[in-house]
Amino acid sequence: MYFEEYLPQRVFALRPVHVTEAGIVEFARRFDPQPYHTDPGSEEARAFGGVIASGWHTCALAMRSFVEGYLSAESALPSPGIDELRWHAPVRPGDELAIAVTVLEATPSRSKPDRGIVRSRIEATNQDDVVVMSMTAINFVRRAPPTAARGAS
Amino acid sequence: MYFEEYLPQRVFALRPVHVTEAGIVEFARRFDPQPYHTDPGSEEARAFGGVIASGWHTCALAMRSFVEGYLSAESALPSPGIDELRWHAPVRPGDELAIAVTVLEATPSRSKPDRGIVRSRIEATNQDDVVVMSMTAINFVRRAPPTAARGAS
Repeated sequence: MYFEEYLPQRVFALRPVHVTEAGIVEFARRFDPQPYHTDPGSEEARAFGGVIASGWHTCALAMRSFVEGYLSAESALPSPGIDELRWHAPVRPGDELAIAVTVLEATPSRSKPDRGIVRSRIEATNQDDVVVMSMTAINFVRRAPPTAARGAS
Repeated sequence: MYFEEYLPQRVFALRPVHVTEAGIVEFARRFDPQPYHTDPGSEEARAFGGVIASGWHTCALAMRSFVEGYLSAESALPSPGIDELRWHAPVRPGDELAIAVTVLEATPSRSKPDRGIVRSRIEATNQDDVVVMSMTAINFVRRAPPTAARGAS
């Protein structure tokens, strides 16, 4: 996919994410060592009904689906950032998260004619239909190369 | 630290983050498998002068410092989210990132008198004084327990 294919309102259902307790604990021990993420037996985890995933772990898991199903190696440039990242509800061991992306805006770059800026809404929804995470991703995406453009005209 | 200690404009220099090529590649293979993150020999990585870290990896590394030096197990509740996460410049193997946090705002919760909402600016700055990442974190933090409050009065 090149920039031209990111049409506003287009929706992509990406590969779902399966969350495991081992994955939650391992990620959190390395990067987010708070007891309600790392220790199922802790008072803090029990207060939440068991360990809950680090929000950064949920982001990382969703990113894998985003890379595989939404970005293309030929066109995806490093992202400048994310707006309004929200962790709405706990993510728990055994959760199956549907990952959906909607193109919000696609704007050609003014300064660099070879690319455009795509703004996308990412939502992760669990098996009980609760949106657990949402964000707006900003991505620089290359335009189709001139030969492909000529072929299409 | 309880809510009362997060005073606006207070600045915390957290534990610096050391970035390695093995860490960049391992994280990206699992969560962000784009060639400029995963494969030092790829054309894509060479275009950036070598592999660059997944933005989510930089977030996760900074989170560890944030948990260790800014949050307290007694008072930190799960975060509702992040605003204006920006990856300003590439993070590379060998980088040493200074992690600084500034309290922007601390507001008592209206609905839950046992806690407050802290907004914090997190910045990661590399050894060349380039800010590579910034974000505004939103955290729910417990207020000091009544006994401590009585002790202080």
